[in-house]
Amino acid sequence: MQTFRLVIACPDGVGIVAKVSNFLATYNGWITEASHHSDTESGWFFMRHEIRADSLPFDLAGFSQAFAPIAREFSMQWRITDSAQRKRVVLMASRESHCLADLLHRWHSGELDCEIPCVISNHDTLRSMVEWHGIPFFHVPVDPANKQPAFDEVSRLIDLHQADTVVLARYMQILPPDLCARYAHQVINIHHSFLPSFVGAKPYHQASLRGVKLIGATCHYVTEELDAGPIIEQDVERVSHRDNVEDMVRLGKDVEKMVLSRGLRYHLQERVMVHGNKTVIFD
Amino acid sequence: MQTFRLVIACPDGVGIVAKVSNFLATYNGWITEASHHSDTESGWFFMRHEIRADSLPFDLAGFSQAFAPIAREFSMQWRITDSAQRKRVVLMASRESHCLADLLHRWHSGELDCEIPCVISNHDTLRSMVEWHGIPFFHVPVDPANKQPAFDEVSRLIDLHQADTVVLARYMQILPPDLCARYAHQVINIHHSFLPSFVGAKPYHQASLRGVKLIGATCHYVTEELDAGPIIEQDVERVSHRDNVEDMVRLGKDVEKMVLSRGLRYHLQERVMVHGNKTVIFD
Amino acid sequence: MQTFRLVIACPDGVGIVAKVSNFLATYNGWITEASHHSDTESGWFFMRHEIRADSLPFDLAGFSQAFAPIAREFSMQWRITDSAQRKRVVLMASRESHCLADLLHRWHSGELDCEIPCVISNHDTLRSMVEWHGIPFFHVPVDPANKQPAFDEVSRLIDLHQADTVVLARYMQILPPDLCARYAHQVINIHHSFLPSFVGAKPYHQASLRGVKLIGATCHYVTEELDAGPIIEQDVERVSHRDNVEDMVRLGKDVEKMVLSRGLRYHLQERVMVHGNKTVIFD
Amino acid sequence: MQTFRLVIACPDGVGIVAKVSNFLATYNGWITEASHHSDTESGWFFMRHEIRADSLPFDLAGFSQAFAPIAREFSMQWRITDSAQRKRVVLMASRESHCLADLLHRWHSGELDCEIPCVISNHDTLRSMVEWHGIPFFHVPVDPANKQPAFDEVSRLIDLHQADTVVLARYMQILPPDLCARYAHQVINIHHSFLPSFVGAKPYHQASLRGVKLIGATCHYVTEELDAGPIIEQDVERVSHRDNVEDMVRLGKDVEKMVLSRGLRYHLQERVMVHGNKTVIFD
Repeated sequence: MQTFRLVIACPDGVGIVAKVSNFLATYNGWITEASHHSDTESGWFFMRHEIRADSLPFDLAGFSQAFAPIAREFSMQWRITDSAQRKRVVLMASRESHCLADLLHRWHSGELDCEIPCVISNHDTLRSMVEWHGIPFFHVPVDPANKQPAFDEVSRLIDLHQADTVVLARYMQILPPDLCARYAHQVINIHHSFLPSFVGAKPYHQASLRGVKLIGATCHYVTEELDAGPIIEQDVERVSHRDNVEDMVRLGKDVEKMVLSRGLRYHLQERVMVHGNKTVIFD
Repeated sequence: MQTFRLVIACPDGVGIVAKVSNFLATYNGWITEASHHSDTESGWFFMRHEIRADSLPFDLAGFSQAFAPIAREFSMQWRITDSAQRKRVVLMASRESHCLADLLHRWHSGELDCEIPCVISNHDTLRSMVEWHGIPFFHVPVDPANKQPAFDEVSRLIDLHQADTVVLARYMQILPPDLCARYAHQVINIHHSFLPSFVGAKPYHQASLRGVKLIGATCHYVTEELDAGPIIEQDVERVSHRDNVEDMVRLGKDVEKMVLSRGLRYHLQERVMVHGNKTVIFD
Repeated sequence: MQTFRLVIACPDGVGIVAKVSNFLATYNGWITEASHHSDTESGWFFMRHEIRADSLPFDLAGFSQAFAPIAREFSMQWRITDSAQRKRVVLMASRESHCLADLLHRWHSGELDCEIPCVISNHDTLRSMVEWHGIPFFHVPVDPANKQPAFDEVSRLIDLHQADTVVLARYMQILPPDLCARYAHQVINIHHSFLPSFVGAKPYHQASLRGVKLIGATCHYVTEELDAGPIIEQDVERVSHRDNVEDMVRLGKDVEKMVLSRGLRYHLQERVMVHGNKTVIFD
Repeated sequence: MQTFRLVIACPDGVGIVAKVSNFLATYNGWITEASHHSDTESGWFFMRHEIRADSLPFDLAGFSQAFAPIAREFSMQWRITDSAQRKRVVLMASRESHCLADLLHRWHSGELDCEIPCVISNHDTLRSMVEWHGIPFFHVPVDPANKQPAFDEVSRLIDLHQADTVVLARYMQILPPDLCARYAHQVINIHHSFLPSFVGAKPYHQASLRGVKLIGATCHYVTEELDAGPIIEQDVERVSHRDNVEDMVRLGKDVEKMVLSRGLRYHLQERVMVHGNKTVIFD
């Protein structure tokens, strides 16, 4: 079923919901899902509606034009998207296959509603797996002594494929700040720890050294500061003294896969609203 | 903060949210929380608003009068309640103290927003604990050969204390059908299994015999059919071959406490809407 | 690291551990993992040792010969296996790909230590996915009016490929009793409910009708009675009124994958001991 | 059932289990529980036996004397304790009642097998609750300008009551280093975050600022460095944008209670072995 997704953030006040729901009712919009959140600390209001496209007399442009006055009245940050216009998601990976294979399978079996125009990797290891899915694979090696050319090529490929989302499916390279800035809230990373614990390299080794009893994974938007962007989703798995670092790596893979796929799903369905360094997730 | 809670269920259709939110906006109602659910299978719509009482020009009666025409227009089942009018919850227990002690502590520390006019038990075991909290305790023994006099006395006590909710905190007696019917969706039970598994007596023994790897608990409204009423909340805990029945009983207690207190909290805050034999929980 | 796995069940008594550990110490066996369980209800004792193969002066046959007198003395049910002799696991699937894809990926990336001599399916849907992994795929359609020829062919293929384990990765057909009996404790099924709830067909529909707040999956050995065999592993996922049957199916897939792969891993590493209709899992 | 608990840590090697189990078998010791762990990283071996006291011809002193030569031979760090000699646990609390009430109820209902000779608090708030349980309550106010006199009094009370374990049930004061050193691995703290995230004060505020999707609690032995001691147990609870700091505090209380009571239970049953800054937990 084709739906429009109307996503709004604005300073809280009386009458916002009334204005928006009146607008939708005036045009006989059939709301299939409605979510609201008043954040008392910041004084902001967040709202998401999913509306049957066939119940409205507009296309997206028409909707935008009709809605603009209301948006102005309440100083809204807003977007309207069409579920039929699937997001274009470029996946980036390194040598580890678990997150990439998981996303590709979910996409292939129809569970992830998006286009995957290409996969980019700094290694050639996963080419065959990607190509079996009928997706172009680009091998862009990163020279540790001079990484910029590789990131230039990555940028070019992302632009070329008109990506609106980039997923770092255990890419293992830190993106340069300008790339992060250009794709703000569009680059999703999976970090293999329960952030803010164990930022940076080898988090499972750090976890093992500290003797924690749970390991975790964190899906977040990439910002300039390493592993510090807005968190979309997290989860954990129990470990014990019997689990050495290799066991943690193995157990952690399943958490990483689950957390990344859930986070990406929220993102694709316009369920994530970033405010400051935090997220509102209308799941 | 005093709030009014407006809870609505009605056949789904266009314009319901608009009508309700217009109504609230007209009177400058400050909505602190709004939840919606369209059930596509049944074609019903569910809505819950929490509105600052001091933002409205009504008391409850005034609100009801003003809102009644809208309710009629959409054939709504609805209720409006005032957070300042705390529910009156009669607790019933037997000899096991864990659920009762947990609820009493949550109430005593201000976490459970209700009155507890009395505790009724078929044993005298927990009197001192209850009375330390300043709550009257009634010992109503149940004669296995003739239970009706006891249940008549229980009914009388519930009525006398003007209870609007009864919680069976491991009461271990099956209430007679007429009592269940009189307090439909007002009697909350905790069953010590993950329903519909292990209905009836000694669920941990049943679980141990079947060799399950998780045990659970279920909080539900009591109906005439044993352990078959609408489920409010459930949770589970992992067990292994090392856990015999006694271990399961011990581990289960913590699940029972958590599940019952969460379920009761939802109920007290008017977050539970029963439809058929299922619940919508606006948590 | 190559290990021998010595797995023992016997009536409990004094001196069993001493006898076994003496035996191992006599031959300088380097124990990397040791697990014990005394079941007080049944009076049985369970033990599993993992011993570095290169520390022992035996091969498997030599070990068996030397250990046999001890086994007789304590009326042990026992087995000794060599981690270097990987189990041969035949996978069976239908049209749903999630469990099969998950197991194949774990195998392909080296996480599941076994051979997969072939995949058998009653549909041809997943052939390409299987063959990409370099594994033979056999399409054995099942005629609803006369299933026996298909099961004869399945039996033949299992025998031909010298399988010691069969995994029903959402095979969706009920195996005939003689096949279950021939491969007792060797056929692993994943049932998409938290057993014993929702035995049989369409468990997610049953779960939705009952209004449960958690859905689950159960990995168990197949026996003649449907969905009643010894449980190896279970897990659950939270659902709410927002999740219809399709959502439950989607969310359930992840639980099914996790539970099946964990259960199979236990089985492959000789961590599962069946006693009566229950399992001891030395994880 | 009275048991002896034999707990051993030593450099790993061949023959340790044989020697110990021979020793036990020689004296007809009936082992009810046996746990082993070989830590390959450190090269250490850990072992715990629970033996029926009535099956042995020794008292504790006799056991120790007979076992000493074996302990010397393998350079063992070891202890033997008698389940009939219940540990003496001094509880320390501040104004928050949830952890203290939880532990007191578990103790009162027979779930926690220990003596509680007294409760010490820097506030008088919880006196009545403690005294209802028949336990002496000591109010030792802490002067922020000069804390030493208070800690001297705390030390005196701990010694006077012959405590072998001290539990900081949300005590909210940092113990001085000499007290930590004197009771190494005997002082158990509950920290209201998933360590190592959010060390120090106001962890729920820190968690809210960072926008995490799970909050947690950590039970650990107190060492000189704040919140850095060996972790005994951890757990988490899901939160969302709907949960402000007050909600996190409320939800966190249940995690704190569970984690502290589980950690203390492990400690009381001699299931915790500290090695370096990590723990082996034989649960």
